Amino acid sequence: MAKEIKKIAVLTSGGDSPGMNAAIRSVVRTCAYLEIECVAIYRGYQGMIEGDFKPMNARSVNNIINKGGTILKSARCLEFRTPEGRKKAHDQLVKAGVDAFVVIGGNGSFTGAMIFNNEFDFPVMGIPGTIDNDIIGTSYTIGFDTAINTVVEVIDKIRDTASSHNRLFFIEVMGRDVGHIALNAGVGAGAEEILIPEQNLGLERLLDSLKRSKKSGKSSSIVIVAEGDKIGKNVFELKDYVEEHLPIYDVRVSVLGHMQRGGNPTCFDRVLASRMGVKAVEALLEGKTNYMVGIRDNDLILTPISEAIKGHTPVDEELIRVSDIMTT
Amino acid sequence: MAKEIKKIAVLTSGGDSPGMNAAIRSVVRTCAYLEIECVAIYRGYQGMIEGDFKPMNARSVNNIINKGGTILKSARCLEFRTPEGRKKAHDQLVKAGVDAFVVIGGNGSFTGAMIFNNEFDFPVMGIPGTIDNDIIGTSYTIGFDTAINTVVEVIDKIRDTASSHNRLFFIEVMGRDVGHIALNAGVGAGAEEILIPEQNLGLERLLDSLKRSKKSGKSSSIVIVAEGDKIGKNVFELKDYVEEHLPIYDVRVSVLGHMQRGGNPTCFDRVLASRMGVKAVEALLEGKTNYMVGIRDNDLILTPISEAIKGHTPVDEELIRVSDIMTT
Amino acid sequence: MAKEIKKIAVLTSGGDSPGMNAAIRSVVRTCAYLEIECVAIYRGYQGMIEGDFKPMNARSVNNIINKGGTILKSARCLEFRTPEGRKKAHDQLVKAGVDAFVVIGGNGSFTGAMIFNNEFDFPVMGIPGTIDNDIIGTSYTIGFDTAINTVVEVIDKIRDTASSHNRLFFIEVMGRDVGHIALNAGVGAGAEEILIPEQNLGLERLLDSLKRSKKSGKSSSIVIVAEGDKIGKNVFELKDYVEEHLPIYDVRVSVLGHMQRGGNPTCFDRVLASRMGVKAVEALLEGKTNYMVGIRDNDLILTPISEAIKGHTPVDEELIRVSDIMTT
Amino acid sequence: MAKEIKKIAVLTSGGDSPGMNAAIRSVVRTCAYLEIECVAIYRGYQGMIEGDFKPMNARSVNNIINKGGTILKSARCLEFRTPEGRKKAHDQLVKAGVDAFVVIGGNGSFTGAMIFNNEFDFPVMGIPGTIDNDIIGTSYTIGFDTAINTVVEVIDKIRDTASSHNRLFFIEVMGRDVGHIALNAGVGAGAEEILIPEQNLGLERLLDSLKRSKKSGKSSSIVIVAEGDKIGKNVFELKDYVEEHLPIYDVRVSVLGHMQRGGNPTCFDRVLASRMGVKAVEALLEGKTNYMVGIRDNDLILTPISEAIKGHTPVDEELIRVSDIMTT
Repeated sequence: MAKEIKKIAVLTSGGDSPGMNAAIRSVVRTCAYLEIECVAIYRGYQGMIEGDFKPMNARSVNNIINKGGTILKSARCLEFRTPEGRKKAHDQLVKAGVDAFVVIGGNGSFTGAMIFNNEFDFPVMGIPGTIDNDIIGTSYTIGFDTAINTVVEVIDKIRDTASSHNRLFFIEVMGRDVGHIALNAGVGAGAEEILIPEQNLGLERLLDSLKRSKKSGKSSSIVIVAEGDKIGKNVFELKDYVEEHLPIYDVRVSVLGHMQRGGNPTCFDRVLASRMGVKAVEALLEGKTNYMVGIRDNDLILTPISEAIKGHTPVDEELIRVSDIMTT
Repeated sequence: MAKEIKKIAVLTSGGDSPGMNAAIRSVVRTCAYLEIECVAIYRGYQGMIEGDFKPMNARSVNNIINKGGTILKSARCLEFRTPEGRKKAHDQLVKAGVDAFVVIGGNGSFTGAMIFNNEFDFPVMGIPGTIDNDIIGTSYTIGFDTAINTVVEVIDKIRDTASSHNRLFFIEVMGRDVGHIALNAGVGAGAEEILIPEQNLGLERLLDSLKRSKKSGKSSSIVIVAEGDKIGKNVFELKDYVEEHLPIYDVRVSVLGHMQRGGNPTCFDRVLASRMGVKAVEALLEGKTNYMVGIRDNDLILTPISEAIKGHTPVDEELIRVSDIMTT
Repeated sequence: MAKEIKKIAVLTSGGDSPGMNAAIRSVVRTCAYLEIECVAIYRGYQGMIEGDFKPMNARSVNNIINKGGTILKSARCLEFRTPEGRKKAHDQLVKAGVDAFVVIGGNGSFTGAMIFNNEFDFPVMGIPGTIDNDIIGTSYTIGFDTAINTVVEVIDKIRDTASSHNRLFFIEVMGRDVGHIALNAGVGAGAEEILIPEQNLGLERLLDSLKRSKKSGKSSSIVIVAEGDKIGKNVFELKDYVEEHLPIYDVRVSVLGHMQRGGNPTCFDRVLASRMGVKAVEALLEGKTNYMVGIRDNDLILTPISEAIKGHTPVDEELIRVSDIMTT
Repeated sequence: MAKEIKKIAVLTSGGDSPGMNAAIRSVVRTCAYLEIECVAIYRGYQGMIEGDFKPMNARSVNNIINKGGTILKSARCLEFRTPEGRKKAHDQLVKAGVDAFVVIGGNGSFTGAMIFNNEFDFPVMGIPGTIDNDIIGTSYTIGFDTAINTVVEVIDKIRDTASSHNRLFFIEVMGRDVGHIALNAGVGAGAEEILIPEQNLGLERLLDSLKRSKKSGKSSSIVIVAEGDKIGKNVFELKDYVEEHLPIYDVRVSVLGHMQRGGNPTCFDRVLASRMGVKAVEALLEGKTNYMVGIRDNDLILTPISEAIKGHTPVDEELIRVSDIMTT
């Protein structure tokens, strides 16, 4: 029979994403509401190994729901990938009287939690916090909505100056393996073309599309390029290629980079994080373990971590079609 | 047998909402892509009655995806509620060679379209554009996401000054019949209490909650009040009541009003509108009529208008619970 | 001979304004740079009387430059207006070894400091922090630039929906005695008419102007009304009056209220606050007292508090003229 | 005796900047107010040569005050640098009955205007529109305030993620010849170090400063680098250098690029542009020519173009000192 859970730890791990603080706050406040003890673990699994813990109460998380980043810090931790590292972490948890933990992060963080659970039969629960929105078992990850708004707002600004000068812009956005940010922000920003890792449309099609766009009288063109796109050229090489093969355009490049991870979370991300935090704590108290919390439409669901970490959510084919139609 | 559809009209009707322009753009571009003619109708049903039409092509909707409001204007139209008014409107459509129309709006606009369809067997399709998110048949209406972000951003600002002065704020947000904006923005903004039309928690509970909040050491309190809340006092009366019964607080009121309807649409609203516009045109071409386009999770669905207009979407009970837990 | 200054206190007093935190940070860091001790006083003069002090070092003010409100809290304090209250405050300062203080606030706060200085020969220095921009001796007060941007952003949103419905909006902004916010934000937002405390243009002129605006084909009208305007009607009475005398308009009202005091400070306010904090500390160390720091063009200047508190800065006549021309 | 001016042309030239539309609107409305004819010239001097003109009235500039970019488009034009090109331009102006023009742009644009004036005795007036704020004869250029706010907002976002990971960021901002953007945005964003073209602090000092910052317990470091900084390494080389010589940091780079030119103008830029437009038209009507409009404190002033184009405004030494103190 499972041990009763009286103290829950919460940590953030891997790359940070906007809304992580709202999720931390939710875990802490749900514990307070249910009269369970709660401790924060700083700097992800590294802090777990080092015992960098701090008791939390409802007031510890005042005024953080609207802050980007994570007040618990995050870090990637090689040591936790070793049995010795995990042993140390387990010792620290036992010493601190922790009965279960909630980890907010992505696939790598969940994999660590799953192995830890398997080794020590220690209750764990995952909350998907990543801007990439690529995790199986949820329609939305915490931070994605904020990231696509950040991208769209920047492209709106670039469009101002692009239109004033009849320019073509290649804009690189995050997404090494998946094109969710590129596709959604591209449709939202009215991009003329969107290059994602899931498709290789080829350079010929790109040139054709740009020619058509120019001919149709558009005063500027924006091409969104996901980091991991498969066209075989990075965004600077694309600029050179197009300037050589399509000299009608004055081409510029913008690499958006890390600003996409920051910023005050949107209302959507704050609400999503608040809901997931409640669900994570309640699921642990119901004796569930080794799951990730997700959302489907308006329902919170649980997916075994073993399934959640199998690859990436595919991009929406229907949205690719919408994107094609919109660039008519 | 249904007449082949060669020309589609698009109009916005009722209160405007951010993202309507993205929906107009999508209808127009989908027509262009499918090589169907498209005409815009200005000023809603009033413009339909008066024949205020304009042919649209793909370039007519350049640079509007990021603009709030509606380039087609909107208006409430009493004449369309009469058989004579609708007869005039039908004559204008026939004269202009229009075979079907897409109306972007709320329940009132859909009811008009349904009656029109019943009277003239004229193909119609609805797209839900309202900030209230209360329309049956869709998880999200166009404009809701932008509105809750506007509210949350304003409350973030008010929180700054409230915290600096240990103040209590009553903030009135839109929602005459439904509390979706209040509940979501309230959870997103970390409000201490949320008053919605669907619940009457009573004044006693409000006082208790505020006393508890003060005692727990919070430096400020924000209470969100939906316009149509059932507590029996408007937001200014609430201020007086609390100042009389709970003199520990310095109380202020803020009525957010029409700013909630405006602003550049969020990425979510732009993408949603783009998808719905494609679906609306394609459904008409497939011979569907008298439906409203909606979204469930990531799937676009059709609901008969006769069902969509039956009342309002209830608020999410689970989210009310999350709200209670978060204010611990 | 003046006593050498080795420890400086900093407080915020009166209404808060965005950028106060940047000014606090600047005072604290300048002390650290010059190897002077620094203490914070919480809750304005009330905290001074109660000895609510905290030692500060350069790290105490990390990550506050971009936050609205004031981390030191603010309060209005009646007791400091009495000789007994000021005596208590002086005792607390002496007990804590404080040799001088910098007060960030408005006229009321400076008056208190001046009286205190006169009574105890205690070195004081003022930094103008108020959104009203009405303090003699400086072209800009900390918070004004943020406030006018907040107002303009909200009006941009309201304009969206006003244009979609051909509406007239009366928008009340802060400014009981002065029209700086109304005039600057009104010009910035392209308002059709601006009503300020310094002028009474009369209701007739307002009606004429609105008629002309309607006739000229504008799709919406925005009238900015400062709280203290002299037209003899509040913003709701104005609505009734115009609806009665000019029935061609659908009129709406929006009272912006306290959101104008909050929000992340603009770059201008952050830089201004940073510069003023340095100047305040350096002036005290040079033996200056009873001055307020101000800015003229790009030069920091000192004005005796006795002059700074004499009335309000008048509005710029040339800008009123620009406003008239812009509404052609 | 000077010819009476009955028709004024307005154009934007060179790189665009936010607020140019507000300046265009102001020139057009001032002409309308003073009952002078006004024509717009599209695409800068290129459009002048090609006669790409359009008559403007007060309504032509509705709803543009809040838009980034320039509705008149801009372009760099080599042909205008030749006597033949200018001759063509003059012929077009004469043919269109234009008596004077206002050019909104930077040094290059003003030089062209001055030469044109010298050759044809044609009245010209300059309005400084550039984000660089480097033009002699004015404390502020149109667009600078918006640009520094854009930079600060982005750095606020990057700070979120930098703090969560204890990272060092090199952020490149615009400024090939001058450090105004870097210095102001750097102070506003609380940057730990600011590298500008006007100073070469040397790599040693940079390393020392970063070591000190790390030691003092800061959770992240932001270094702002102006494009034209003189440290002898670009931003990517700096990253490599620091990673090699200071392995305690995980370093990232962000090049902000063209987003700095776009975006809705701030209230400051809109008001400044409105005032300068009025002044430009009135100065022409008073018989002034070959001047640039500028602002000193709150006064609009005129500077002969021949002086305005002599080099760049130096950065404020006092602000460099503030910047040093703030990074204590």
